Amino acid sequence: MAPTDQPALDPRFARRSAGLLASEIRALFAVASRPGVVSLAGGMPAADALPTQVLARILGEVATDPTALQYASGQGDPALREQICAVMAAEDVRADPRDVVVTTGAQQALDLVTGVLADPGDVVLVESPAYVGALATFAAHGVRVRHVPDDGAGLSGPAVAEAAERARRAGHRVAFLYTVPNFANPSGVTLSADRRAQVLTASARAGVQVVEDNPYGLLRLEGEPLRALRAMAPDVVYLGSFSKILAPGLRVGWALAPAAVTAKLVLAAEAAVLCHSSLAQAAVARYLSTEPWGDHVKGLRELYWERRAAMLSALTAHMPPGTRWRVPEGGFFLWLGLPAGVRAKALLPRAVEAGVAYVPGTGFFADGSGDDHLRVSYSFPEPAVIEIGVRRLAEVVKSAADEYETGFDGSRG
Amino acid sequence: MAPTDQPALDPRFARRSAGLLASEIRALFAVASRPGVVSLAGGMPAADALPTQVLARILGEVATDPTALQYASGQGDPALREQICAVMAAEDVRADPRDVVVTTGAQQALDLVTGVLADPGDVVLVESPAYVGALATFAAHGVRVRHVPDDGAGLSGPAVAEAAERARRAGHRVAFLYTVPNFANPSGVTLSADRRAQVLTASARAGVQVVEDNPYGLLRLEGEPLRALRAMAPDVVYLGSFSKILAPGLRVGWALAPAAVTAKLVLAAEAAVLCHSSLAQAAVARYLSTEPWGDHVKGLRELYWERRAAMLSALTAHMPPGTRWRVPEGGFFLWLGLPAGVRAKALLPRAVEAGVAYVPGTGFFADGSGDDHLRVSYSFPEPAVIEIGVRRLAEVVKSAADEYETGFDGSRG
Repeated sequence: MAPTDQPALDPRFARRSAGLLASEIRALFAVASRPGVVSLAGGMPAADALPTQVLARILGEVATDPTALQYASGQGDPALREQICAVMAAEDVRADPRDVVVTTGAQQALDLVTGVLADPGDVVLVESPAYVGALATFAAHGVRVRHVPDDGAGLSGPAVAEAAERARRAGHRVAFLYTVPNFANPSGVTLSADRRAQVLTASARAGVQVVEDNPYGLLRLEGEPLRALRAMAPDVVYLGSFSKILAPGLRVGWALAPAAVTAKLVLAAEAAVLCHSSLAQAAVARYLSTEPWGDHVKGLRELYWERRAAMLSALTAHMPPGTRWRVPEGGFFLWLGLPAGVRAKALLPRAVEAGVAYVPGTGFFADGSGDDHLRVSYSFPEPAVIEIGVRRLAEVVKSAADEYETGFDGSRG
Repeated sequence: MAPTDQPALDPRFARRSAGLLASEIRALFAVASRPGVVSLAGGMPAADALPTQVLARILGEVATDPTALQYASGQGDPALREQICAVMAAEDVRADPRDVVVTTGAQQALDLVTGVLADPGDVVLVESPAYVGALATFAAHGVRVRHVPDDGAGLSGPAVAEAAERARRAGHRVAFLYTVPNFANPSGVTLSADRRAQVLTASARAGVQVVEDNPYGLLRLEGEPLRALRAMAPDVVYLGSFSKILAPGLRVGWALAPAAVTAKLVLAAEAAVLCHSSLAQAAVARYLSTEPWGDHVKGLRELYWERRAAMLSALTAHMPPGTRWRVPEGGFFLWLGLPAGVRAKALLPRAVEAGVAYVPGTGFFADGSGDDHLRVSYSFPEPAVIEIGVRRLAEVVKSAADEYETGFDGSRG
């Protein structure tokens, strides 16, 4: 943002709070929740995916024990940390519960990791496009985000090496590389096994810490599971979450890190929130020990497979020529490339007018690029609603593309 | 800490993570939880103070609604924010729900406020002694803590003015003044009405933002309630919590701030944890709207009155001459001044050996002072256990005092 665009900072505020700026997704949630608007914008789990009755029973049980309503330890309940290791083992990650920190969702895990590894002004390398919530955390910490160029298949070894080299030549410390290797948000890209090895080798050679964020790993809808980066290299910092496989409202996530990093993360967690909710931890622990959570995840895969299918067939049926997408092998998101001349941000008010919301691609780049793409999600709306939403979206994209073709660029607002 | 005491920082870590050091309270919790040790160390609510049955029922009810298990807004549920305003009105604070941010306990509120108001290197003024959790947050943010001297009655206008002036003369920006005006942790001191006015005037004159942390305000055990600082000056940032009046395990606290600060706090909260637990928020909201929470608080006052009485009579009965304390008008804590030559830190291993734990006064000073005091809490142990713990503590204090008198200083370890 040019200095002239930036309002003068209130003298009460810290200089670093200048990074706290309202995101586009934020403004969007207000319009997307208008009645009649189909939101393909959010990344919420399906309502049907939430085991309300089971959790209601479990919560009623665990809350009768006063320890579930007391303060907890900063690192999190030891029994839950063991169960978290069992959950990670489903993706071939072998971990010691002593290296796990339970956090207020994976978002807090990333926030703490950023605080421990990165100073303001340091560079964090991210994929292109990158998770908007991670970009918000990095901005709040005053770190410099550098996007590693994507050749269509996600990160590559040479691209990571070059980005690290470039940042260092510019005089910056490279704090870490942040990636969502499975069904990335928003791109849907899954890093191939070969690319995983490449990226780990390039990062190790360049001395760059890798931070792997894996909220969707168990929600693979097709193809063979790939080993987590952390399964291939034990010094990777790994972030996990129960938000997608159980319920976001519990806010239970975790970080798995090398012991020395974990020790700092625990202290950072205590300074930030004292301790995580003992109630939420007790509920997740009881759920994992008494419920067939693997079957639940299998059910989720069926549910999201159906929604992805609804979105893919609607896109195929309705989208005008020039619109491009790739089929995500799992997760919640689809990244749409728009026809020539159609810009996602300028199009959004028209889309909302037509009764559909999405997230413009610019939200996923720290440098303002991405306006030729948008993100749609199939996780929350039911299949019939997805069909309606995509049809509405296709209409506004088509008319904007037509206007561009005929020289009248209505998408310029 | 002298540079030579500080281990070389792991090159993976950010420089600012050097402020993340294990606190004394932390090491203590390990020993204090040994079987047979009476812990007067922690600041947990009484087990009897937790309405387990009521909350178990409410949690079972609210979790059947999928929205209680979904993502929430960064600022927190609007209905709960209205109820929080009603809770604050009980202490004469008039607030608009739009200026409230729901947080993961008041600890997170302080963490976010620190991030928004203070840059690393800025000065934060604090009372003497000051809440150890606040000192941990300030250290994690790399801000400089400057203790305002206490004349026995807490902060005063001249002392605040002088501390601000001194920090500025040293070239530092003063980010804010942090204070717990009611039944402070650990001192138990309550700022008089006159002192409150003085401190507000001096802060306003010096251009210093006041941050008021009030977790114990409703737990007054004697005397007349005093108006909150925020009730006297609307630009005060106010931190509140349900941890002491309902249950810490829910991790529901809040910040009330001027609108421009609130806007930044919401963005900071989103960057830190995305959103607070919708489940915990729904449970607190349901509790406040369906249960007689005022009666519950009245019951808590009776419970803690009895425990404070047990501690005061045990102290009077057993403590050796030279031990000093003042009667806290509420809250959880009592600040003991030790007889000449007895040092709290060195005494702790002997106390634990004798079956009692406390927090050495040094935990509550950023500059290492306070070793002639210790903090005891009467909130968690039952009255009969308090009596045993104080008797054990009195014995070790007495023997250390005797050794000092006779020239053999056993408290030196």
